Amino acid sequence: MSGVNNKQEEATSKDYYFDSYAHFGIEMLKDKVRTLSYRKAIYQNEHLFKDKVVLDVGCGTGILSMFAAKAGARLVIGVDMSDIIDQAKIIVKDNHMDNKIILLKGKMEDIVLPVDKVDIIISEWMGYFLLYESMLDTVLIARDRYLKKDGLIFPDKATMYLAAIEDGEYKDEKINFWDNVYEFNMSHIKEIALREPLVDVVEAKALVTKPVILKKIDIYTVKKEELSFTVPFKLVSLRDDYIHAFISWFDIEFTACHKSIHFSTSPFAQYTHWKQTVFYLRDTLTINNGETVEGELSCSPNEKNPRDLNIKINYTFNGECMKSKGNLDYKMC
Amino acid sequence: MSGVNNKQEEATSKDYYFDSYAHFGIEMLKDKVRTLSYRKAIYQNEHLFKDKVVLDVGCGTGILSMFAAKAGARLVIGVDMSDIIDQAKIIVKDNHMDNKIILLKGKMEDIVLPVDKVDIIISEWMGYFLLYESMLDTVLIARDRYLKKDGLIFPDKATMYLAAIEDGEYKDEKINFWDNVYEFNMSHIKEIALREPLVDVVEAKALVTKPVILKKIDIYTVKKEELSFTVPFKLVSLRDDYIHAFISWFDIEFTACHKSIHFSTSPFAQYTHWKQTVFYLRDTLTINNGETVEGELSCSPNEKNPRDLNIKINYTFNGECMKSKGNLDYKMC
Repeated sequence: MSGVNNKQEEATSKDYYFDSYAHFGIEMLKDKVRTLSYRKAIYQNEHLFKDKVVLDVGCGTGILSMFAAKAGARLVIGVDMSDIIDQAKIIVKDNHMDNKIILLKGKMEDIVLPVDKVDIIISEWMGYFLLYESMLDTVLIARDRYLKKDGLIFPDKATMYLAAIEDGEYKDEKINFWDNVYEFNMSHIKEIALREPLVDVVEAKALVTKPVILKKIDIYTVKKEELSFTVPFKLVSLRDDYIHAFISWFDIEFTACHKSIHFSTSPFAQYTHWKQTVFYLRDTLTINNGETVEGELSCSPNEKNPRDLNIKINYTFNGECMKSKGNLDYKMC
Repeated sequence: MSGVNNKQEEATSKDYYFDSYAHFGIEMLKDKVRTLSYRKAIYQNEHLFKDKVVLDVGCGTGILSMFAAKAGARLVIGVDMSDIIDQAKIIVKDNHMDNKIILLKGKMEDIVLPVDKVDIIISEWMGYFLLYESMLDTVLIARDRYLKKDGLIFPDKATMYLAAIEDGEYKDEKINFWDNVYEFNMSHIKEIALREPLVDVVEAKALVTKPVILKKIDIYTVKKEELSFTVPFKLVSLRDDYIHAFISWFDIEFTACHKSIHFSTSPFAQYTHWKQTVFYLRDTLTINNGETVEGELSCSPNEKNPRDLNIKINYTFNGECMKSKGNLDYKMC
C-alpha cells in the first residue's frame, strides 16, 4: 500500500511549467473546495457585508474582493504586493466593479488606506503546512492596524493536525531511491531529501494512527510570536502496521457566518491544492494496535530567511516489537 | 477527446514542491528514457571511452561522469555552475571515483581545465522545447575551446518536430476557463495564458496532422547564431477534425556510438520529463482530411533576458469549412 499518490491530482490543473500569473491563479481558482468555501461564506452572509468596508489581504486576481462587492459591500480595498494586482485591476474594471473595489499595490506595512478602519477583513493567506510562505503575518498587521472593534475576519479559525502513516512504497521511491542510482551510491542526497517535507496527496487508508490536534489558531487574538511554537503530541496506533512518516494538514473555519462554514485539507476530505505535508522518518517503526508514539513538534521561521520554516520533530517509541527515538530537523524552503 | 493529459505522469516523481537539489535530481534521474539512453551510449562503447579524457558539461549530480569513468575513461572533468556540484563531489568520493573524476564549479567560459583538450564531450543539455533554458550554448563553448580535432560529442544530433492537435477539452480547462471564473470575467488573464506555451503530456491520438521536422541540429557544427531561426512548415491533416494547438517535441541521437543510439520525446514514445510543448491557437480550425496548415515558426532568445525564449508562429489555413490566419507571439520565461 502506498499512502502518497497523485491520482486525485489528475482532475486539477498543475501542469504549466512556467510560474506565471496564469498558472498561479488557475491552481488557486480551480481549487473549488477553497474558492467555493470563501464564496459561500461571503454570499450566504450578505447581511454581514451589506454597506460595509472590506479589506482583502493578498487579493491576487481579485476574486474574493469581487465576491465581497457582489455581496453588497460599500467599499472593498484589495492589497497585494505581487504584480498580479495589475491584472486584477483590469479584471475588476472588466467586471464593472471599479466603483466599489480599490486595489493597492504594496506591502500592508507601507500602504496608506483611504479609510481609517474596516468592518471586515477577508484573506486567503494559508500556505502549505498552513504556515509555509503564508500571509498570516500580514493579516495580523492589517487586523491590528485597521480592523474596527468588533470587526469580522473571514476566515477566523485554523486548526493544524498530525498523524502517522504507512508509506513504504513511496518512501522507497522518494527517499531510498538514492541508495542505489543506476548502481551508484547517492545516499548523500538521501540525507538532504529526508529533511525536506513533501507536499503530496496522502490516501486516508494510509493513516496508522488517529489524528491529533497540533495547534489551534484564532485569527482574532493570535500574536505573531505564537506562530513559533513547540507542542507535544501522542499518537495512538489503530492497527498492527509500520510507520514511515508523520503527516500534517489543517482545517479552516469561518465562524463569523450566520451558520459556521468550514473546510478541511485532511486526507479524509476532498482534494485541495494544499494536499498534505509529509515528514519521512529515518527509521521504520513496527507498531502494534494501541501502542503510542510520543514526542513534540516545533515550528519557527528560519532566523536567516524568515520565509523558510524550520520544523523539528522529536519522538520516542517503546513498542513490543521495537524501541526507537528520533530527532529530526526539517526545513521548508 | 482530450489530447493533453497527465496519466503517464503518475509513474514519475514530481511532487516535491520544494525546488531542491533532491527534487531536481530525482526528476532527471528517474527519467529512465533519458538516463538509460546515456548509459547505453556510454557503456556499449567502452572502446571509445577507454583511456580517454572526457568533459561532462553541466554535470549535475555527476551521474554521466560516473558512467564515463566506469566505461574506462582515464580522466573525467565535470563542470557545473550550480551548487549541486558540491553534492556531486561527495557522491563521486562515496563511489571511490575521485581518482578519475574532477569536478569544477563555475561557468565554462571562466573555468581553467587541467588539460588543453578533451577526447569526448558528454552533456545532457536539453531543455523544454529543446532550447528553453538549455545548456547548448555552454556545450558549444566547450566544443570550440576544448574538443580535440576528431573528438566525439555525446549526443551529437537533435531534431525538433511540429504537429497540430485536437485538444478541445483541455483548451477549455486551461484557456477558456478564464472567460467565466465563478461568474466573473477574467478573459484578460486568458490573453496571458494563450501566450504561454504549456509543457504537458500529449496523447498520440490527439495528433490531427503528420509531424514535420522543424529543425535539425548537428552539435559538431552548429553555431550559436543558428539557434535563432525562422523555419516554414506545412502540416497535412490526417482526418476530418478540429485543431486547437500546435505541439513540438524533439529526438536525440548519439551517432558516435558503434551502433547509433537514439531516444525520442514524441507523443508516440515513452514518457520523458520533457513531455511535449503545446502552443494553443486563439481560433479553432475546422480541418478536412488532406487539407494543410502552412506557416512559419521563429525562435530566438529574448533580447532583454536571453534565458527566456520568444517563439512566433504565423499560419494560414484555407480549408473548405473555414479560412483562418494567425500571428501568435509566445514567450517561455
